[in-house]
Amino acid sequence: MDVQLSNLKFDSGGLIPAIIQDAAGGQVLMMAWMNRDSLEKTIQSGKTHFFSRSRNKLWLKGESSGHVQQVKSIAVDCDQDVLLIKVEQAGAACHEGFYSCFFREYEKGAGELKVVGKKIFEPEKVYGK
Amino acid sequence: MDVQLSNLKFDSGGLIPAIIQDAAGGQVLMMAWMNRDSLEKTIQSGKTHFFSRSRNKLWLKGESSGHVQQVKSIAVDCDQDVLLIKVEQAGAACHEGFYSCFFREYEKGAGELKVVGKKIFEPEKVYGK
Repeated sequence: MDVQLSNLKFDSGGLIPAIIQDAAGGQVLMMAWMNRDSLEKTIQSGKTHFFSRSRNKLWLKGESSGHVQQVKSIAVDCDQDVLLIKVEQAGAACHEGFYSCFFREYEKGAGELKVVGKKIFEPEKVYGK
Repeated sequence: MDVQLSNLKFDSGGLIPAIIQDAAGGQVLMMAWMNRDSLEKTIQSGKTHFFSRSRNKLWLKGESSGHVQQVKSIAVDCDQDVLLIKVEQAGAACHEGFYSCFFREYEKGAGELKVVGKKIFEPEKVYGK
């Protein structure tokens, strides 16, 4: 790993959270986990790669949907245990069809979370059934 | 806990990551962890409260520095295991004196992380020595 990133603190499972932000609009798109390998692949390829804890494997964001994220910058927080990656998002970030995964908001007194995001695509058309 | 938040997925340690974003400028300020109690206190008070894993206790952001965060909105991601909280930040978010904790960037080929953030205050003046 690049010497600049040698002080990164990965957790006991070897992972670090990566916040993904839209480089143009500033919208926070998602958060996912990286291990050293996925961070290296992200840097080498210029496309975000994450580590799936449920599937226990590396994945290229957009590998099924084509909704890849071109990396524009990688920032590190003060404690060096969180990454902030600005990207150019193809299509939409969320597998539910929304541009951002944070498409629901809490509203005091409401009965349920309110959908505030805009649907960009229909998941069943992109991923099949 | 409010019924809207009853499906939130806290990890095995009872925690959920909370991304804090500047409501006005869109800058991502920090990421910290919340348990149910800190999320409830955040909602009740309108000021962010987190759970410190190292000190094993709840803390009000800004309790020493006065740099509190007024909550403007709380969004939940598709998997309901990450929060995105937009705030109005008093002073600066980072204890190192920068507005955002993500004040250093990776630059291919550079010898070290590059400081890209602007220093707002001198930590020793705010926290004492």
